[in-house]
Amino acid sequence: MSNGIATKKTIGRVHVRRQPSRGHYDRDSIYEVLDAGLVAHIAFVDAGQPFCIPMLYARIGDAVHIHGATTSRAMRILGDGAPACLTVTLLDGLVLARSAFEHSANYRSAVLLGVFRRVEDPEARVAALAAFTNKIVPGRWKEVRKPSTQELKATVILSMPIREASVKSRFGSPTDDGSADADLDIWAGVVPLRTVFGNAEPSPGLRPDIPLPSSAERLLVSMR
Amino acid sequence: MSNGIATKKTIGRVHVRRQPSRGHYDRDSIYEVLDAGLVAHIAFVDAGQPFCIPMLYARIGDAVHIHGATTSRAMRILGDGAPACLTVTLLDGLVLARSAFEHSANYRSAVLLGVFRRVEDPEARVAALAAFTNKIVPGRWKEVRKPSTQELKATVILSMPIREASVKSRFGSPTDDGSADADLDIWAGVVPLRTVFGNAEPSPGLRPDIPLPSSAERLLVSMR
Repeated sequence: MSNGIATKKTIGRVHVRRQPSRGHYDRDSIYEVLDAGLVAHIAFVDAGQPFCIPMLYARIGDAVHIHGATTSRAMRILGDGAPACLTVTLLDGLVLARSAFEHSANYRSAVLLGVFRRVEDPEARVAALAAFTNKIVPGRWKEVRKPSTQELKATVILSMPIREASVKSRFGSPTDDGSADADLDIWAGVVPLRTVFGNAEPSPGLRPDIPLPSSAERLLVSMR
Repeated sequence: MSNGIATKKTIGRVHVRRQPSRGHYDRDSIYEVLDAGLVAHIAFVDAGQPFCIPMLYARIGDAVHIHGATTSRAMRILGDGAPACLTVTLLDGLVLARSAFEHSANYRSAVLLGVFRRVEDPEARVAALAAFTNKIVPGRWKEVRKPSTQELKATVILSMPIREASVKSRFGSPTDDGSADADLDIWAGVVPLRTVFGNAEPSPGLRPDIPLPSSAERLLVSMR
């Protein structure tokens, strides 16, 4: 698998053991989930206790980036190189089977193991902040006021190369079509789920002569 | 705080340190997030490596329940009483400020620390399976075939009492309305996000005379 991410040495930790047909290890599958998601859940350990914290993130090339305040405990622990897990999950549908047992969800989930390091290079830091802003709304960076020296100073940016990673996913209809349960008078199928944008709400303090920017307009059109 | 969950002894671990006004510790706030979410991310440690895995869950009274296959590694580790963190995050909107720095997301996130134990009592196990099924689609349990002895045997159910927990949330418009940035010719506001259901897709093997059940009908009406 020339496009694979997990090496023989490391595949064990991210390998999808149960239902192995649901596992994918190629970069395209992993990038697809990372690029479609908005929030990652990041696990780390502090004094023996695992924590799982939601954060905004952005992929740049073959690394994921997160950011936070210099005063943040999570940023300090992760920046010091604690083992971490970054997970992005997309929920695609509810799976209704004839049996309670076969009820499930359709989803795609990328799980990345690794270690973050602080991004110190000034140009790389600005590139990461541009990626965060454009991840929230594509094209937003070029519309906004760029970070001041003071804002940059207050921000920690962390980067984790994508080395050990897998995607687990479930697609399609319930699994009891071919079973004895299919004779029961019980509906089976999928209820798809998706995330949509509502109408943009201008800030109460926005000057009334400022129109909706093209970034937000494109975003709203793209999802409708 | 008579309704509070975190005790003086434990509050430190789940206390929202940065932006403390975003933190909530009362049962109502925590139940609200748990009941609105569908997927939890659960962190645990295996051989020094934290993992963060998405799972369906259900709250029953003052405990959260998860389930999985008896062969699952996560179920074994969590069932053996490893320290765990269960996090449920709801993304409510994109916050577009005039400055890149103040871009953010509106969200609600419940973080629970604790230890799971296996649910062994047969009645409690069936009650948990009913809760999982009704969490996917309210009212679904009474429509479906109940678990067989063999299915019950293949399923581990774990329960964690809600003891150490907090909700962190962000609501409302960007924070730069009152700042010097408000003079800039840059749009600011919120783009709300919500999850909606698509049209129910019958399973390919579904007999054509079986109509959409009332549980799914109610679900689709409730979100439109």
